Amino acid sequence: MSTLTIPSDLPSVTEDCEQLKKAFDGWGTNEKLIISILAHRTSTQRKLIRQAYAELFGVDLLQSLDKELSSDFEKVVLLWTVDPAERDAILAHDAARKWHSNNQVLLEIACTRSSLELFAVKQAYHARFKRSLEEDVAYHTTGDFRKLLVPLVSSFRYEGPEVNMTLAKTEAKILHENISNKAYNHDDIIRILTTRSKPQLNATFNHYNNEFGNAISKDLKTDPEDGFLAALRAIIKCLTNPEKYFEKVLRLAINKTGTDEGALTRVVTTRAEIDMKQIKEEYYRRNSVPLERAITHDTSGDYEAMLLALIGHEDA
Amino acid sequence: MSTLTIPSDLPSVTEDCEQLKKAFDGWGTNEKLIISILAHRTSTQRKLIRQAYAELFGVDLLQSLDKELSSDFEKVVLLWTVDPAERDAILAHDAARKWHSNNQVLLEIACTRSSLELFAVKQAYHARFKRSLEEDVAYHTTGDFRKLLVPLVSSFRYEGPEVNMTLAKTEAKILHENISNKAYNHDDIIRILTTRSKPQLNATFNHYNNEFGNAISKDLKTDPEDGFLAALRAIIKCLTNPEKYFEKVLRLAINKTGTDEGALTRVVTTRAEIDMKQIKEEYYRRNSVPLERAITHDTSGDYEAMLLALIGHEDA
Repeated sequence: MSTLTIPSDLPSVTEDCEQLKKAFDGWGTNEKLIISILAHRTSTQRKLIRQAYAELFGVDLLQSLDKELSSDFEKVVLLWTVDPAERDAILAHDAARKWHSNNQVLLEIACTRSSLELFAVKQAYHARFKRSLEEDVAYHTTGDFRKLLVPLVSSFRYEGPEVNMTLAKTEAKILHENISNKAYNHDDIIRILTTRSKPQLNATFNHYNNEFGNAISKDLKTDPEDGFLAALRAIIKCLTNPEKYFEKVLRLAINKTGTDEGALTRVVTTRAEIDMKQIKEEYYRRNSVPLERAITHDTSGDYEAMLLALIGHEDA
Repeated sequence: MSTLTIPSDLPSVTEDCEQLKKAFDGWGTNEKLIISILAHRTSTQRKLIRQAYAELFGVDLLQSLDKELSSDFEKVVLLWTVDPAERDAILAHDAARKWHSNNQVLLEIACTRSSLELFAVKQAYHARFKRSLEEDVAYHTTGDFRKLLVPLVSSFRYEGPEVNMTLAKTEAKILHENISNKAYNHDDIIRILTTRSKPQLNATFNHYNNEFGNAISKDLKTDPEDGFLAALRAIIKCLTNPEKYFEKVLRLAINKTGTDEGALTRVVTTRAEIDMKQIKEEYYRRNSVPLERAITHDTSGDYEAMLLALIGHEDA
């Protein structure tokens, strides 16, 4: 569930645009006013604001924001303001071009979005970058990671609830055999993880656990330093338990010396309207500290205020 | 261009449905009447007829056709009547499940449809088979063919006209090096063929020809018996010159002892509304016999009449 709060007496789109313009004009920028508007509008409402703003003032709202804001606050506001599919395209483009084996953004986008959402990302990628997502991922990755990531971002998974239990058993066995032989990059492991539907995979993993005595993720943890194994575990978590996956990304971002603002901004902007409520619950369960308090502790100023507003906790 | 002829005094959808019902009822089926309606309606019109027929008579038109018709005539009418995306899903499903290395239907669908058409096929596949196309292709194919076909059916290629000439040169060189080393299944060959846009690939192949003295297809013909090489050549033809590809499929289907009705039906039903005019020109150029005459020579009865109607040549 979303943590977004929308005012009950919603101003008109034109009023929002005029207020934003006012926030940019004059002596200094009124960051509080910007947050009070943009952090409390749904993606559809923000889209309308962006369109109306361009019509009213002849300039893209993103350009005005880019001009007036700076550093982490600028990044979170820009990433939040764009359309979700375009936002994912920007994140995926960045991850593909600067790809390294510890960067899990591509698999996160491929596995936590619905099939139609992922397709919208691919369309936004075409429109914005004049290339395809698959093309960039295939070009910038190598070896086993390429073998895994290209089908992962390309797949249009079936989303119905049907589960074939016989297939789940067969494929749990195939996974177990290959994992036991340490053939982690085996074609069949990649085929199963990248093409089967989420309910089907869930049944396969459950059967794996019942039949072979360990959760599959545990059997994939033989070498904690191995980036490919970490990617396989992250994929499994994204497919079957995205809230837990995102909780961990937030935990590592916050616990890191110096805070990983990129990861914090990404998770908050991409999940606020989706499942941030569950992620917050998961975070509290795992850390015994509310996410709000952890964010307040690690960030400051307008950046902090924007994050808190998005996760449904005003600092005012 | 389409070879479909639509009457200028088009009857209403309801009239069409009533005429079809009349063709099924009574003593014997009126095949001529069925052809005179269905073979002269666009895909949008056929869709409306199918919807109205179900509403008027409480039964799917496809079921009535299935009940009343038989053999090759039945197959061509059924395949023609369904929505193009669903038709491709049926053909792809059949090809994936009975896959063998000489069957080029999967690569044909993946490479001659537009990116959005291919996406519509994937949606139709979900709806009809409760699975994904990628999933079935990955499951039923093996080895190098799997490595090639899965990304091929999964890719959502960019379709803009932009061409990067520097990239075309680099990738022509990569293709040439691997082909010279007979590394036909090299990751880079597969990456380039399955992800780059059609205009970009065209530039790459042109540069290959200019720089290395042979068309790439010629360099891929070292062993005419090798099914994988044949698949690579077919992919290149489908991507850059689909009319020539389809001409060859028709030629082989017609020249075969006994005629390959499956291929004949597939090409006529899938291309009639798209580029059958160019395919017919290509056929005449290559065989010195008009396609109409070749079809008349090789087929008979209602099946012949339906094919001729679809390629714009009534036998009446």
